[in-house]
Amino acid sequence: MNVLVLNGPNLNRLGKREKEAYGSFTLPELEQELVDFSDERGFELICRQSNHEGELLDWIHGADDEGISGIILNAGAYTHTSIALRDAIASIRVPVVEVHISNIHAREQFRHHSHIAPVAIGQIAGFGKEVYRLGLEALLLRQQKG
Amino acid sequence: MNVLVLNGPNLNRLGKREKEAYGSFTLPELEQELVDFSDERGFELICRQSNHEGELLDWIHGADDEGISGIILNAGAYTHTSIALRDAIASIRVPVVEVHISNIHAREQFRHHSHIAPVAIGQIAGFGKEVYRLGLEALLLRQQKG
Amino acid sequence: MNVLVLNGPNLNRLGKREKEAYGSFTLPELEQELVDFSDERGFELICRQSNHEGELLDWIHGADDEGISGIILNAGAYTHTSIALRDAIASIRVPVVEVHISNIHAREQFRHHSHIAPVAIGQIAGFGKEVYRLGLEALLLRQQKG
Amino acid sequence: MNVLVLNGPNLNRLGKREKEAYGSFTLPELEQELVDFSDERGFELICRQSNHEGELLDWIHGADDEGISGIILNAGAYTHTSIALRDAIASIRVPVVEVHISNIHAREQFRHHSHIAPVAIGQIAGFGKEVYRLGLEALLLRQQKG
Amino acid sequence: MNVLVLNGPNLNRLGKREKEAYGSFTLPELEQELVDFSDERGFELICRQSNHEGELLDWIHGADDEGISGIILNAGAYTHTSIALRDAIASIRVPVVEVHISNIHAREQFRHHSHIAPVAIGQIAGFGKEVYRLGLEALLLRQQKG
Amino acid sequence: MNVLVLNGPNLNRLGKREKEAYGSFTLPELEQELVDFSDERGFELICRQSNHEGELLDWIHGADDEGISGIILNAGAYTHTSIALRDAIASIRVPVVEVHISNIHAREQFRHHSHIAPVAIGQIAGFGKEVYRLGLEALLLRQQKG
Amino acid sequence: MNVLVLNGPNLNRLGKREKEAYGSFTLPELEQELVDFSDERGFELICRQSNHEGELLDWIHGADDEGISGIILNAGAYTHTSIALRDAIASIRVPVVEVHISNIHAREQFRHHSHIAPVAIGQIAGFGKEVYRLGLEALLLRQQKG
Amino acid sequence: MNVLVLNGPNLNRLGKREKEAYGSFTLPELEQELVDFSDERGFELICRQSNHEGELLDWIHGADDEGISGIILNAGAYTHTSIALRDAIASIRVPVVEVHISNIHAREQFRHHSHIAPVAIGQIAGFGKEVYRLGLEALLLRQQKG
Amino acid sequence: MNVLVLNGPNLNRLGKREKEAYGSFTLPELEQELVDFSDERGFELICRQSNHEGELLDWIHGADDEGISGIILNAGAYTHTSIALRDAIASIRVPVVEVHISNIHAREQFRHHSHIAPVAIGQIAGFGKEVYRLGLEALLLRQQKG
Amino acid sequence: MNVLVLNGPNLNRLGKREKEAYGSFTLPELEQELVDFSDERGFELICRQSNHEGELLDWIHGADDEGISGIILNAGAYTHTSIALRDAIASIRVPVVEVHISNIHAREQFRHHSHIAPVAIGQIAGFGKEVYRLGLEALLLRQQKG
Amino acid sequence: MNVLVLNGPNLNRLGKREKEAYGSFTLPELEQELVDFSDERGFELICRQSNHEGELLDWIHGADDEGISGIILNAGAYTHTSIALRDAIASIRVPVVEVHISNIHAREQFRHHSHIAPVAIGQIAGFGKEVYRLGLEALLLRQQKG
Amino acid sequence: MNVLVLNGPNLNRLGKREKEAYGSFTLPELEQELVDFSDERGFELICRQSNHEGELLDWIHGADDEGISGIILNAGAYTHTSIALRDAIASIRVPVVEVHISNIHAREQFRHHSHIAPVAIGQIAGFGKEVYRLGLEALLLRQQKG
Repeated sequence: MNVLVLNGPNLNRLGKREKEAYGSFTLPELEQELVDFSDERGFELICRQSNHEGELLDWIHGADDEGISGIILNAGAYTHTSIALRDAIASIRVPVVEVHISNIHAREQFRHHSHIAPVAIGQIAGFGKEVYRLGLEALLLRQQKG
Repeated sequence: MNVLVLNGPNLNRLGKREKEAYGSFTLPELEQELVDFSDERGFELICRQSNHEGELLDWIHGADDEGISGIILNAGAYTHTSIALRDAIASIRVPVVEVHISNIHAREQFRHHSHIAPVAIGQIAGFGKEVYRLGLEALLLRQQKG
Repeated sequence: MNVLVLNGPNLNRLGKREKEAYGSFTLPELEQELVDFSDERGFELICRQSNHEGELLDWIHGADDEGISGIILNAGAYTHTSIALRDAIASIRVPVVEVHISNIHAREQFRHHSHIAPVAIGQIAGFGKEVYRLGLEALLLRQQKG
Repeated sequence: MNVLVLNGPNLNRLGKREKEAYGSFTLPELEQELVDFSDERGFELICRQSNHEGELLDWIHGADDEGISGIILNAGAYTHTSIALRDAIASIRVPVVEVHISNIHAREQFRHHSHIAPVAIGQIAGFGKEVYRLGLEALLLRQQKG
Repeated sequence: MNVLVLNGPNLNRLGKREKEAYGSFTLPELEQELVDFSDERGFELICRQSNHEGELLDWIHGADDEGISGIILNAGAYTHTSIALRDAIASIRVPVVEVHISNIHAREQFRHHSHIAPVAIGQIAGFGKEVYRLGLEALLLRQQKG
Repeated sequence: MNVLVLNGPNLNRLGKREKEAYGSFTLPELEQELVDFSDERGFELICRQSNHEGELLDWIHGADDEGISGIILNAGAYTHTSIALRDAIASIRVPVVEVHISNIHAREQFRHHSHIAPVAIGQIAGFGKEVYRLGLEALLLRQQKG
Repeated sequence: MNVLVLNGPNLNRLGKREKEAYGSFTLPELEQELVDFSDERGFELICRQSNHEGELLDWIHGADDEGISGIILNAGAYTHTSIALRDAIASIRVPVVEVHISNIHAREQFRHHSHIAPVAIGQIAGFGKEVYRLGLEALLLRQQKG
Repeated sequence: MNVLVLNGPNLNRLGKREKEAYGSFTLPELEQELVDFSDERGFELICRQSNHEGELLDWIHGADDEGISGIILNAGAYTHTSIALRDAIASIRVPVVEVHISNIHAREQFRHHSHIAPVAIGQIAGFGKEVYRLGLEALLLRQQKG
Repeated sequence: MNVLVLNGPNLNRLGKREKEAYGSFTLPELEQELVDFSDERGFELICRQSNHEGELLDWIHGADDEGISGIILNAGAYTHTSIALRDAIASIRVPVVEVHISNIHAREQFRHHSHIAPVAIGQIAGFGKEVYRLGLEALLLRQQKG
Repeated sequence: MNVLVLNGPNLNRLGKREKEAYGSFTLPELEQELVDFSDERGFELICRQSNHEGELLDWIHGADDEGISGIILNAGAYTHTSIALRDAIASIRVPVVEVHISNIHAREQFRHHSHIAPVAIGQIAGFGKEVYRLGLEALLLRQQKG
Repeated sequence: MNVLVLNGPNLNRLGKREKEAYGSFTLPELEQELVDFSDERGFELICRQSNHEGELLDWIHGADDEGISGIILNAGAYTHTSIALRDAIASIRVPVVEVHISNIHAREQFRHHSHIAPVAIGQIAGFGKEVYRLGLEALLLRQQKG
Repeated sequence: MNVLVLNGPNLNRLGKREKEAYGSFTLPELEQELVDFSDERGFELICRQSNHEGELLDWIHGADDEGISGIILNAGAYTHTSIALRDAIASIRVPVVEVHISNIHAREQFRHHSHIAPVAIGQIAGFGKEVYRLGLEALLLRQQKG
């Protein structure tokens, strides 16, 4: 199993910004923790972040071409505004797990709707940085079921 | 850690009903699997199901009085209609993880909104029966951070 | 053919309440009339009423387990608020005929929408207590077509 | 008792169009079946169909002038768009039973609202062609109570 | 000055229908009264009524071709549903006065909006049958200013 | 017959403001024209204008106390925002004719709704300053019918 | 005078839950205070609480059968979701006073609408536990007027 | 304790207007009754009424400057349209009790929303003129709790 | 290939009406141009226009019975109001190309929605009279692929 | 250049009310500061405040008659509710700069919409009391371009 | 004539993705076909695709600077979300033809609205890859009229 | 003080596009004017423009890392569609002034809402290119207050 962890706009700001909401860890620290977890569980992990919607689209397309087993996607604010991301996910065979560090359903009304959810295999929102690890567990459990 | 797994209306029909949507396992089978998991991980687990909104409210209140460590709640259709469940959760100290077997955000419009989400610590939706196990993982990870 | 006639909240008040709207017959009188009709037409009939949404769910589930041929359901106010009833009907094989004594489409806006209609085989509304008999006719005609 | 069965736009296409939704019978076959039923039960029946909203209005007006006892009206798509039909029914003394072959409440959102319902004595939707016969039963039961 | 008084759907029912709302005069009586008024004031008057939207469109087109000075239009229920009538009026040079016997703004919500208003020179609603006479006065006053 | 012509906010600006929309006559000129008309037709006329919602309310109340036969009311922008004006009119016996110089139904969406219409005997909109005279005609015709 | 004080879902949590919002008194303390007040003023008082919508319906029906003089109803979250409660109140002769400890109109949007208000004689919201006493005063004042 | 009872637009019409809705007492009679009540209970009472929104604002500001203990406010129709009243109340320290003679939640949709409620300590609606007395009781009970 | 070009309400006014919006050609001129084009490309073409919704329905039904290869439909204002046209198209096997002379998506909001689009094979809007020719090209290209 | 600074409802409460939101300066202090600024920059300044919508209308009309060069308008809550203010501004030649002390777009939803904006030359919101000075700068820059 | 064919997000996935919806041709194949068509008809054609909204904006700006005769734009999902694309098109003189491979008006609600349509000369949707060729025909016909 | 002036999509088109709406100056001319102003007032100024949402996000993040004193942001069309920009601004300490050359509140409905406003210190819209200078004044005044 090889997995792509994809972070969208502003997630490079983790640890620098609203710490009470998102925690005090930085993106590199988070990514290292996930890599450690993947080593422990014996699968490959690649982490990428971009503030550019187009770059996220390119990477999602690429994941399909490169035979990635699964994507953990935190699309940040693009979750709520990007139909293009929805269409990109619909155009690939790779299963996508949608994650959000904060519980988007408990925040402003405009964060409740996700364009991505209808094409993701599931959504995990609101447990802090653990959502990435829970997302990886979800992919592992899915693989076990075969 | 002692956890209450609470299932709401129609979830006693698992395995009897729309299998392509919810899987072919029954509720007793699911509950046994979760009990096995809790034994393996060393915590206590109680499972309950009711079709009665009032009974769910009573049990949620009781969980607070009995010092339960966490609740995994699949409120079924009451997720979308019960403000009373929201108020019950807001009135207890016990953390509640909201789970849904299907990805409610990928279904009919009226299943997108959750009255429970704003008072839950997080929501997991759409990975089949694994959402219960992921919910328990979320409580375990949370306890470790303590 | 064995049929379950299920009445929901406040229908135990028939004959005691707004008589100009619902007629002057009581629920026991209505139920007796329907039993007489079933005797005349040679099929079995069971009548139940509850103000409890959960009890209605339990009975609908039970109808499936007991091999009932059809359900005549007047869900009263739960028609407009209960997604749980919708899901219960979706989870059984028994055909459900939705009936309403008054013409709900001619009343307040909030009575126009039915959560039950999308999973019922049909809806009959507005002919007074005759809707129960018309509902039974509908089940009989359906059985004849086989 | 003399009854007018009025069919609106596209109902002349029955049997030629979407058979899985509307059945394989044609309009003449349906009308013959209803005439047979009226002979059996001893009342007069006239059947008409038009794709012209104005013609339907003329016929409804005429029914009042000619002393018709009741109208069974399947207004087809005009159900959802014609306030003129509503006003025509409101301007006559003849009771109107609204029928629909398919369960309009289980279909697209724009078919849920009926302009006719508020001025009809009742609505029957969703049992296939039997709705016409159930509508006639409703008129007969009403006459007996008369 | 030659004027066309155009009445739409169901207005042939005046005097036969809801008299408390629309008065006890019939359409022929109303038309005679208007002809008398036109004689008195020295202009020509033609009165027509149709339940057919298409026929109303044809007449409106014809008015332009025949050089009519003005149209008094009571489009009845088509006021609220017919964009075609709007487009017809927009396609002619003849000024159109929109009239309504009842005060449509004081009735059901769905009667408040007029597709015709944006292309009419003005709207008169709610004074009973006098709206036709007031409409003619409006055309006369307009001609005087001419 | 004694009539009160009441003009609301900004109508003192007539002739000074948007002339293409409202004409080049001033309020005093308009009022003089109406007084001339009342002299000609033999009834009394009082004209008042205020930019103060409260003052308009006081005058409407006063009209009832003083036994005025009818009110011609152009409430200007308060038409769309003042429920208080609606309630004032509902609290008097004097019939109120609602007039608007421009065709409010052909303008911005927020000018289509009138709080006054449901309690006025009728509405005349869009014929320029003639609406006042048409309103007086409406009161005269109404008085003749008695 | 004999009065029924009826508390709905989660009100058994008073004093245990959000004290800053609802105060630190418990439900038994509140009920005792109201009983003391009824003794002082010389009328009978019965207090009941349930988390079950169906049980509340049963009690409301029973109040009518038992000739209760008035009901003070705090329906909690069911205020906003239960049309069944509305229908139950509409089906009895007993006057119902709707009370809310917090000012529901100053809280989340979904708490502003009450299904009960249209069938209650009045609503008191937002003075803390005093709303029960004010509700009893309202019934006493009403009784004095006879 | 010194209290200001403030009545808004059209409340000077009490007893002259819709008596079945508002009762047959006049505003002076109501005010006298409240003064008698304040004498009996030993606090000062001032009563004012205005149809002018600006005057109500001035008085609310003045109440703060003059150290009034509480305001009973029936803002009439301004309840639904005046954000200025809301802001005025938010700018003072004096507690405001919102009262309505009729049950505004049981009337037209546009009377359900109150701009004042979010800044009032509570709302009492629908018991006829007794709402003023209940409002005063609420202030007295609040003072006792101190 | 034989094609039916169907024009709806007001399209007989082409060249007489708003020329800046629709061009200066008349309907007969347009139809001749299309016939010339069909001669050139070697297929049969029939052109019809009606202001009557019912007649358009009849013609659409007839096209199916007569084995027409394709329909070019400019439904004019009925595009936005006629569910009956939608149902007629859904009931035939003939492919329908929806055309509009003006770009309806660039005009008033109420012209943006088409009831016909969901059952048409495609929509061409906004290139002036060329949309008919482009529609014919679309049918020809489709036939080539056939 | 002579400028009118116009403050609407509740702005006389500045410094007395919510200081964290609006600052601790009073209206006279603010007005003095603006007068000092105008002296420094060499133009005339008049400051007025009223809680009366009608008085604001009168002053806006007067500004046009008196040849004022520009108006700085903080309409307070009337910004969101007064179409009359909009119409007044549309009826004058004087340019109006709309200012708000707080950032209305960052506050409650009902403060986001301004009736005044479409007729103002620009809007400045959210820099505290400096918005008045920035508004004057905007008028000065505009005059320089003149 | 030189034309730019611009494809937006995910259109590089053609042939790899949902083939039943978009066909089995790839983007290079489509582009080659269009180049062949341009050679045949004697005009120049440039094809570009990007997933980056900003890059599409840059290219649209560039087309104006380079004197391109026309643009065929399939903006993919950006059609529904990008006001920036609308503004870019509004800022150039080059005519833009909006095309969509699928009939967006027959798909999900969120694909019905186009930000681009109001500034395009026309829209062609739903004939598969032929929309590009039809778009080129539209530009050629337009040039001929030129 | 060092300030970043950030211009978003299509603002590189200034002077080339709709001049009546945006003026005839180009972006380089505007930027030079602002640099001259900063020299005159003694602070540093950097100007950047991009059509790429992601690049704007990167620059906003960078401004925080580089210790910029303030940002003047004209986000163009992204103002209305980009939640990512909102989140970026919320994640930095640098104060952001939102500016718009045209009065967005006086234009199409979809330009009235700003995602940026809730996290900006203020908004200036509608005075042409002077908004940039007024924005800089706002930052200077803010710094003086310190």
